[in-house]
Amino acid sequence: CLVLEVLLLTSLSSAAKNYVITEGQGSLTVQINDVTVLNHTLQSPAFYVGQGRTVFVEALGNFHVRNYIQEKIALRRFSNVQKTNTSDVYNFTDGGIYTVQVTFETKLDQDLVVSFNKVGHNYTHTWVVLAASPSDKIYGGGEQFTHLNLRERTYNSLEFFSSLRSDDLTYPIWTREQGVGRDKRTNTTFFADLQTGGGGDFATTYFPQPTFLTSRKYYFHFTSTSYMVFDFSLPTFHQVFINGDFGDIYFKSSPSFQPLVGNLSSLFGRMPKLPPWVYDGIIMGVQGGTDVMMKRYQQAKAEGVNIRGLWIQDWSGIIRTSFGQRVFWNWQWNATRYPDLDKKIKELKQDGVRVTVYMNPNLNNQGPLFKEAEKNDYLVKNRTGQTYLFNFGEFFCGIVDLTNGAAYNWYKDQIKRNIIDLGIGGWMADFGEYLPVDARLNGGSGAMFHNHWPVLWAKLNREAVQESGKEGEVVFWMRAGHTGTSNFTTLMWLGDQNVDWSEGDGLPSVVPSALSSGLCGIGMTHIDIGLYTTFGALGLKRSAELLLRSAEMAVFSPVMRTHEGNQPGYNVQMYSSVTILRLFKRLVDQHKALSNYTSVAMDDYVTSGLPLQRPLFLMYPGDKKTFDIKYQYLYGADILVAPVIHPNVVKKDVYLPNDKWIYLWNKTDMNPGMVTVNAPIGLPPVFVRKDSSFRDDIVSLADYKYIPFDPSPPNNVSNDSSFVDILSSVILVAFCTLFALRSTGL
Amino acid sequence: CLVLEVLLLTSLSSAAKNYVITEGQGSLTVQINDVTVLNHTLQSPAFYVGQGRTVFVEALGNFHVRNYIQEKIALRRFSNVQKTNTSDVYNFTDGGIYTVQVTFETKLDQDLVVSFNKVGHNYTHTWVVLAASPSDKIYGGGEQFTHLNLRERTYNSLEFFSSLRSDDLTYPIWTREQGVGRDKRTNTTFFADLQTGGGGDFATTYFPQPTFLTSRKYYFHFTSTSYMVFDFSLPTFHQVFINGDFGDIYFKSSPSFQPLVGNLSSLFGRMPKLPPWVYDGIIMGVQGGTDVMMKRYQQAKAEGVNIRGLWIQDWSGIIRTSFGQRVFWNWQWNATRYPDLDKKIKELKQDGVRVTVYMNPNLNNQGPLFKEAEKNDYLVKNRTGQTYLFNFGEFFCGIVDLTNGAAYNWYKDQIKRNIIDLGIGGWMADFGEYLPVDARLNGGSGAMFHNHWPVLWAKLNREAVQESGKEGEVVFWMRAGHTGTSNFTTLMWLGDQNVDWSEGDGLPSVVPSALSSGLCGIGMTHIDIGLYTTFGALGLKRSAELLLRSAEMAVFSPVMRTHEGNQPGYNVQMYSSVTILRLFKRLVDQHKALSNYTSVAMDDYVTSGLPLQRPLFLMYPGDKKTFDIKYQYLYGADILVAPVIHPNVVKKDVYLPNDKWIYLWNKTDMNPGMVTVNAPIGLPPVFVRKDSSFRDDIVSLADYKYIPFDPSPPNNVSNDSSFVDILSSVILVAFCTLFALRSTGL
Repeated sequence: CLVLEVLLLTSLSSAAKNYVITEGQGSLTVQINDVTVLNHTLQSPAFYVGQGRTVFVEALGNFHVRNYIQEKIALRRFSNVQKTNTSDVYNFTDGGIYTVQVTFETKLDQDLVVSFNKVGHNYTHTWVVLAASPSDKIYGGGEQFTHLNLRERTYNSLEFFSSLRSDDLTYPIWTREQGVGRDKRTNTTFFADLQTGGGGDFATTYFPQPTFLTSRKYYFHFTSTSYMVFDFSLPTFHQVFINGDFGDIYFKSSPSFQPLVGNLSSLFGRMPKLPPWVYDGIIMGVQGGTDVMMKRYQQAKAEGVNIRGLWIQDWSGIIRTSFGQRVFWNWQWNATRYPDLDKKIKELKQDGVRVTVYMNPNLNNQGPLFKEAEKNDYLVKNRTGQTYLFNFGEFFCGIVDLTNGAAYNWYKDQIKRNIIDLGIGGWMADFGEYLPVDARLNGGSGAMFHNHWPVLWAKLNREAVQESGKEGEVVFWMRAGHTGTSNFTTLMWLGDQNVDWSEGDGLPSVVPSALSSGLCGIGMTHIDIGLYTTFGALGLKRSAELLLRSAEMAVFSPVMRTHEGNQPGYNVQMYSSVTILRLFKRLVDQHKALSNYTSVAMDDYVTSGLPLQRPLFLMYPGDKKTFDIKYQYLYGADILVAPVIHPNVVKKDVYLPNDKWIYLWNKTDMNPGMVTVNAPIGLPPVFVRKDSSFRDDIVSLADYKYIPFDPSPPNNVSNDSSFVDILSSVILVAFCTLFALRSTGL
Repeated sequence: CLVLEVLLLTSLSSAAKNYVITEGQGSLTVQINDVTVLNHTLQSPAFYVGQGRTVFVEALGNFHVRNYIQEKIALRRFSNVQKTNTSDVYNFTDGGIYTVQVTFETKLDQDLVVSFNKVGHNYTHTWVVLAASPSDKIYGGGEQFTHLNLRERTYNSLEFFSSLRSDDLTYPIWTREQGVGRDKRTNTTFFADLQTGGGGDFATTYFPQPTFLTSRKYYFHFTSTSYMVFDFSLPTFHQVFINGDFGDIYFKSSPSFQPLVGNLSSLFGRMPKLPPWVYDGIIMGVQGGTDVMMKRYQQAKAEGVNIRGLWIQDWSGIIRTSFGQRVFWNWQWNATRYPDLDKKIKELKQDGVRVTVYMNPNLNNQGPLFKEAEKNDYLVKNRTGQTYLFNFGEFFCGIVDLTNGAAYNWYKDQIKRNIIDLGIGGWMADFGEYLPVDARLNGGSGAMFHNHWPVLWAKLNREAVQESGKEGEVVFWMRAGHTGTSNFTTLMWLGDQNVDWSEGDGLPSVVPSALSSGLCGIGMTHIDIGLYTTFGALGLKRSAELLLRSAEMAVFSPVMRTHEGNQPGYNVQMYSSVTILRLFKRLVDQHKALSNYTSVAMDDYVTSGLPLQRPLFLMYPGDKKTFDIKYQYLYGADILVAPVIHPNVVKKDVYLPNDKWIYLWNKTDMNPGMVTVNAPIGLPPVFVRKDSSFRDDIVSLADYKYIPFDPSPPNNVSNDSSFVDILSSVILVAFCTLFALRSTGL
């Protein structure tokens, strides 16, 4: 059972019953603070059990899961077994062979904890049906890129009926590659799907978490790390499918959202405050060896850009494959590619600049670390007891077995010795989603540990920092996660978007992902400025506009860090021209000017659990219009940001909730409601609460001289409509015509 | 309840019990002739019932069906209720609220008829689990284009694990558009799917029928016309899902396949023998008015092509839409487009040539027939009681309500008066698959009648022929069907293939579709020579090679009929050149030379039920190698055909079962087993049984002088790799590279 240890860290205060159970004729209703959370009737039972088989097919971190359900049986009958001051125990049964004992209890600082015991015949699958109203909205679910309200997509939605292709409406809880495209209606997704099922869908994510907040101001959290599927698409109930160990369900209600979010983050553990170097300047992603690194740094410095970190992915060396240059996954300084790195680290530190690197839980089988790990039996095994060699594309890796204490400590030592002792300031702790279900670990099977794996990976990294005495100084950033990640990680980044403007996998998707993560305990996230996935030959390449729009959004987030993308040569980079460096200088200076404000917002998160980027409804729960706003957010308590997430935007409509607002760039007062403002590159719609105690600090951002920038038209054109899109449109139009002809007999 | 009347036509001979029921500890086994057909145990129960919702979303005859199963309950317990000489009645129950009474009985010339009665609580969905062995093969299912053995595609097949996109392995019984592409792995299917879900899949078909023959030499047939889903993908059982009325299950076993096929076709009713004019020459598809029709005819006649019919789709006139020219769906002679058609019909008849036309069950709302039908309340209604106007692409149609006696007779009269009385020799009776589930009919709902609709449509056409006294003279051909179609239709055609070589929807697909139809009672099918779906602008156009390969295949089928395709101008046509006309002359002469043989094969079908095109295993049940051969067939009892279904073929491997064979084209003896023969255009691999009483007739086909034909290389290239394919390949390769990069962190 993988119920997380972190759950035990919370106060074990025992309370009176905070829930009410009402029994009727064949029915049983459970309420917390007058909200019905469970409504069991003969017609709509609350619990089902069944037999079936859940098959996981994996290709490169993309899981295709098929649930073959042979039997799904309602447990209609119930009887009270026990009743105490703080708990009620019931047996639910089908009257035949299946009985489940359900305990309702107020404990662990929750209003209600529901736990399960199999009493009768064994079963493989369980379903829980939670009460719902058609108008309820659901938020959370970990990091969700497409939806903020997870009930946007329902059986009755136009989208379902108009698109015959995307018929899955559910949210699986299974950590995996988030997908390239993430929208079954797009051609990018189709082509990524063809080879390895790599296209993903609206609900695929690196960081799913079975934690949900509802617009009726209560949350439910499932403690299990099993594979689950949440179905919020039905009007009058939510259905939760669980394959494997069930765990408990936590419910808590409140008159307001903020205590709920605070309570959740205290339950899961909160991330520590970041050290100032991470947020009072920018971390610049560069590659190519010591000379290139220093050259890029000097270029940026010459233009006055406040560099506080350099990020070199390729510090451990490179290999060549038919796909081009790749990092050598052996986490040791490669002195051939980076001569004198140790000296440069010291020099740069004196200049106020940290060098940061890259690592992940896998080891290339051509490297010395793999060999050492294999010799010591530290690697995950396959079905036949041999080292599990995972094909990452023309090279094979072993996976360090984090459930083996000796292996865990050895890998932690590698981080301490090879990275921290070298004077490195931080690293991207990549991956964590790929653990194959058929792997054999010291602690059990891959299937058992799959969702918990990124949490173990976070824990290992954090302990390496702590045991080196570098807590509050060294920072690592991750993408994969599950319940408990927030207790260990120092920073999250929002994964690998396409360098485009698509809703499913481009710039828009980073906004709901930051907000949903924030509701689930993750206080601080940041983006790859410029985004990541590039395919230049097909026109999927980064424009200056995309780079600058993402950078101006990052100003209003805890961390600014650039990524060159997977094909740097095709992308416009921060260092591509003096003009762009100067535009970055202004943005980084603004970010630095907010560092006081950011620092206080982080303190606020550490004490109250409110994330730095917040959906509007969290702060304005009385305003129902805010409940569906997914592309605006509050940065801290006082700054409202409506980032520009589409190309060619010159004006933008923004919704201001009921408060006194100042439009940042001309410092004028604004009335609440819908407003329209100009939004050229460099001046995204940003508003400040007039009553903010940081008002003067914040509005001073307007004093940084605005530098107009008009991305050249050819640049624009090539990016707005990539070759793929144009091509696809042509084919599409043609086929629609074809289809119409075909369907009509002549 | 839509149990078909035709079932009552069969002999009602009452017999002793032809099945054995064995009860064990919690188990019940049912056998017929030592074959276990039902194996009920506690672990694997035979019956399930449940609650759920089945949603049909339709776009232009493409149905997207989602089964939302809220509950699926095994009926584990059973008790005997009654036992007679010919029957056993059992109650199966979950021990709770659901009970189903199951009657096992020998009657209606079946070994076993299983029928169901709800005794307990009502339910919406039923599942039956039939016994199976991993090696069992399943044939039939109506017209199946992709598979002959419906268990080719299983959970354990490489295809399932290698393609993460096609995860449905089941066969729905729901008449619909067969789809453009019919293979989720192809780009054609993807693009057709995008707009209206029109791509289809391997199991979508105009003519599904819940009738299955197994390699263990028994059949099972479900009499219901409800929506069902057959799952043959599991190793040890078959699962059948039924939404709605259950009907009965018929089982019959035999030591050989032929009596089973004969019994099935006698159960469903057999098609009548075709009149000679249909099979002793060719029916040529032409369009464009009287002059064009006559010109094409004279061209063909001048080259000596034995024309016996002309097929003019556009006889009722045309309309113009943004998609181009379309037929005016108002089934009356359009004398503007076809002046003097009445006179030409007479002239041509004296020349031995019949004119044939086109119609379907829908009426364009701009036409006089629609207006008359609406005035008389003959049209199907929508939910609000108004005329159901179905959008067929810039024009709207009413649907004649075939469940309304007056409407039915009126429409039949239109056929008699407007078509038969005009002297027309036959017609394509198109459509029958589109009946919307939300339609309101005189007899009930669209959902109830959807699958039965094409049978009513066939019945109406046949009665028009019979009541006109033209039985055995006038012939109509259909594509849509369900159980009972064979009792009414005069001829089937195999639907609308793409003018390409694709397995899912090109030339190969017509072979399994002919064979599976034949096993389900349909004795005679034919193809559109040249196939149909064209999209010239994208390179999807018919080559001379495809035209000729399909024509040489049609020689060995009852009927040769050409189709110009939906974009005639892009396609190579029979009349495109003198060269091609001469090649056709030879093929048509060969077909005519077989007319004696064909006539006897039809007699054979009418008396014994064996179809004209037969899978090899039907005639050679002792040879297990034949069980998986889907692209060869026997034409009648004595001709083995291995049609060329791929481009650029010069040689071909053929499997000859254990018999004495003569290779047709050089009249030499061949040993059974694998043989390789040359297969240039015009000389497809064809073999004759040496013991055939028609041997001399058949081998005389070799005496028609072979005319070599080498399709010009440019023609070839443009067709083998269409623009879509080339384009897609480029994008695909690019994205695979992209994906590999994306998945690896750099």
